[in-house]
Amino acid sequence: MLPEFLAFINQRTSIRPGQRLLLAVSGGIDSVVLTELIRQSGFPFGLAHVNFSLRGAESDRDAAFVRALAGNLGVPFHYTQVDTHSVAAENGWSTQLAARNLRYDWFAEIREQKGYDWIVTAHHLTDSLETVLLNLVRGTGLAGLHGIPVQNGRVCRPLLCFSREELLDFARNNELEWVEDSSNATTDYSRNRIRHDVLPVLRELNPGLEKTFRGSLDRLSAADRWFQALLIPLHRQVAESGRIDAAWLAAQPEPLLLFSELLRPYGFSYRQAVNIYENPAQQTGRYYFSGTHRLLWDRGVWMLDRADNVYPSFHIEENMPLISAPGFTLTFEKLSHTSFLPGNDPSVAWLDAECLPFPLVLRPWQAGDRFCPLGLGGKAQKVSDYLVDQKIPRNEKNGVYVLESNHEIAWIVGRRADERFKITENTKGIIRVTCQKESSLS
Amino acid sequence: MLPEFLAFINQRTSIRPGQRLLLAVSGGIDSVVLTELIRQSGFPFGLAHVNFSLRGAESDRDAAFVRALAGNLGVPFHYTQVDTHSVAAENGWSTQLAARNLRYDWFAEIREQKGYDWIVTAHHLTDSLETVLLNLVRGTGLAGLHGIPVQNGRVCRPLLCFSREELLDFARNNELEWVEDSSNATTDYSRNRIRHDVLPVLRELNPGLEKTFRGSLDRLSAADRWFQALLIPLHRQVAESGRIDAAWLAAQPEPLLLFSELLRPYGFSYRQAVNIYENPAQQTGRYYFSGTHRLLWDRGVWMLDRADNVYPSFHIEENMPLISAPGFTLTFEKLSHTSFLPGNDPSVAWLDAECLPFPLVLRPWQAGDRFCPLGLGGKAQKVSDYLVDQKIPRNEKNGVYVLESNHEIAWIVGRRADERFKITENTKGIIRVTCQKESSLS
Repeated sequence: MLPEFLAFINQRTSIRPGQRLLLAVSGGIDSVVLTELIRQSGFPFGLAHVNFSLRGAESDRDAAFVRALAGNLGVPFHYTQVDTHSVAAENGWSTQLAARNLRYDWFAEIREQKGYDWIVTAHHLTDSLETVLLNLVRGTGLAGLHGIPVQNGRVCRPLLCFSREELLDFARNNELEWVEDSSNATTDYSRNRIRHDVLPVLRELNPGLEKTFRGSLDRLSAADRWFQALLIPLHRQVAESGRIDAAWLAAQPEPLLLFSELLRPYGFSYRQAVNIYENPAQQTGRYYFSGTHRLLWDRGVWMLDRADNVYPSFHIEENMPLISAPGFTLTFEKLSHTSFLPGNDPSVAWLDAECLPFPLVLRPWQAGDRFCPLGLGGKAQKVSDYLVDQKIPRNEKNGVYVLESNHEIAWIVGRRADERFKITENTKGIIRVTCQKESSLS
Repeated sequence: MLPEFLAFINQRTSIRPGQRLLLAVSGGIDSVVLTELIRQSGFPFGLAHVNFSLRGAESDRDAAFVRALAGNLGVPFHYTQVDTHSVAAENGWSTQLAARNLRYDWFAEIREQKGYDWIVTAHHLTDSLETVLLNLVRGTGLAGLHGIPVQNGRVCRPLLCFSREELLDFARNNELEWVEDSSNATTDYSRNRIRHDVLPVLRELNPGLEKTFRGSLDRLSAADRWFQALLIPLHRQVAESGRIDAAWLAAQPEPLLLFSELLRPYGFSYRQAVNIYENPAQQTGRYYFSGTHRLLWDRGVWMLDRADNVYPSFHIEENMPLISAPGFTLTFEKLSHTSFLPGNDPSVAWLDAECLPFPLVLRPWQAGDRFCPLGLGGKAQKVSDYLVDQKIPRNEKNGVYVLESNHEIAWIVGRRADERFKITENTKGIIRVTCQKESSLS
């Protein structure tokens, strides 16, 4: 495998001989194979391990394993332990997103501090195929069919030329030791279903599935690179003028696609772009928000500008499926039965439709606001106290929104629903509201 | 469903009110729903049914059902019965490909004869999703991710806005009758695995799978339409000059992708394009063939011209994975074990590697050629007699190739292997040779 590994590094990454590599090592088979291949390649390197405190003694065992591996190899070992659950709760993130953010932030820090050239992770071709299938399930454009990028910023993934099976063969042939990464098999339910129930069927239809897939990836990513290259002058034009002329747009071959691509650098998702473009009731003076920018419709022209620290209110009518607020998007779904059970995800509110007459108001919280946090039996609390209890940093407090119906707060958006609107056994209709932070949309 | 159906016809097809529609009706649920929706829409229409003679009495039952349906509706009924197995054998096609070709050829004929405006088939959104997943399994570019086209030529597929589940609901709500199309569940093994084992898992991860998928399809097909629009002037340039300059090509953002797109109208597949482009041993004067054209490399320029009735010979070295001959491509794979069992597909030859010393010769058959047809116990036969027995039409005989090793014919390409090269229990290595007709490649 070594020649193929080196050829892939040479052709598809910017890593050059002699550069110092910081390897992200969980101790699982993938990262152990990565370590061995990098060792055989002769690059100077160090190992970095994050203990996410998610699996108790097993987490400690893994950390000890990687420390010993670094010791045996005589290379630097970088280690940190984080409280993933707390960080997730504080930011309204899923555990998985919190782990991901903590990991990459800390790697970037160590890279700079210790003078490594690249962060190297052990993602492989089968991971990438899983990602593409997940994107297809969730909805995607061309960009979501690339799979995992071989290189972005200072992170490289040179195992993306190998399937999981090939890594396993290599590990056995080289008599490598690794720890079974049971978190891999439990944190992402959807990915596990794809891995264990879908890929085996596809592999039966094509035993060379991953190899075939690698060919498709090359074709699809080439198409997207070309496409992006052609967009460069148009992006420049929008950046310089801050305007998109609707008549010009309508004369292009694929106006909606172009509109969504032109808005993407300003933090607007494809779904937002569709919603804005197809909105039949465009009113002059109406704003749409991304995490960083706002878009104003003004008599035939879309005007873009930055929207830092602008927190407008929104009136929400019954049939608006999607609201673009500063930094997040809300989607509204009516569920006619109770087969969907409310989960613990703070980014989703399950509200009783009968308690929630429209129009709703979405507005920044303000001093004096009170609500009844879900699960406290209807006891009222000041929103300001709640935000202090949750240790929301001062600079984020301004961006906290509440969703109101009939002057009662139904939801602290993305954080906590209200007891008075909760689903009970008498609930007939459900309104499910989902908050998606714009930075995590593609 | 009717308003959505009409909106889809209006926005996504060229069908206009009052035009006469020829519906392709198998009698299964999909085509029965199609018939009912078209009836409710008020278009003048007739039913066309092909009896493929593949399922004996069940085929006849289906024909009678559709005839009765047309009678009840008081609309014209067009019927034909074909011998699918014979047509498949004569042309070296799979049963499935033969059925497909017979079907569309006959629909086109009836449409012209009887003055219909459009042929309308009952493909739906779930079929389209299955097609995309199959293409991903088999390898694809952007064009393979469109799914089934809503309209091509004179064929329209207005049910592509609905999932299979929606059709089933409609059929029940309207108390429609249909026949269970058991051929649907047996002729395409791969599609059935996707339908019954993969889609249920994906639908569990996203209950609105098909709806999500429809959004992705819109995005992906918009990207491809844009891409194709940008290629038009380059296609014109190649068509006018018959040349592709290698230096110009190398200066483009994605040379290989562009090369493959520019060659596509001349019948070259993506795999051929890659093989030609990446071939390190380009020799001046070397030709590559598609079904209709040839490409000549001449000191820095690719020259294209038509190649009707040109049948050159090829010498095949051990490590050439792919040979582009006139009208077909051969791929060579070495299999190191016998876990793959030879099937009955005439387009694949399973040959014993020890009996097959390289270089091989691929050449048109000639008078006096003899071989030992597989399964006849080593008895020799004249190739000319074999071709007569197989009823190969005169105009196709010139294009029949044989694959030789050491002056012995190992395979009548795409038709019949030779007994002397067959896999036995003593076989150690296998050479699997696959013949792909260029017209069926994408």
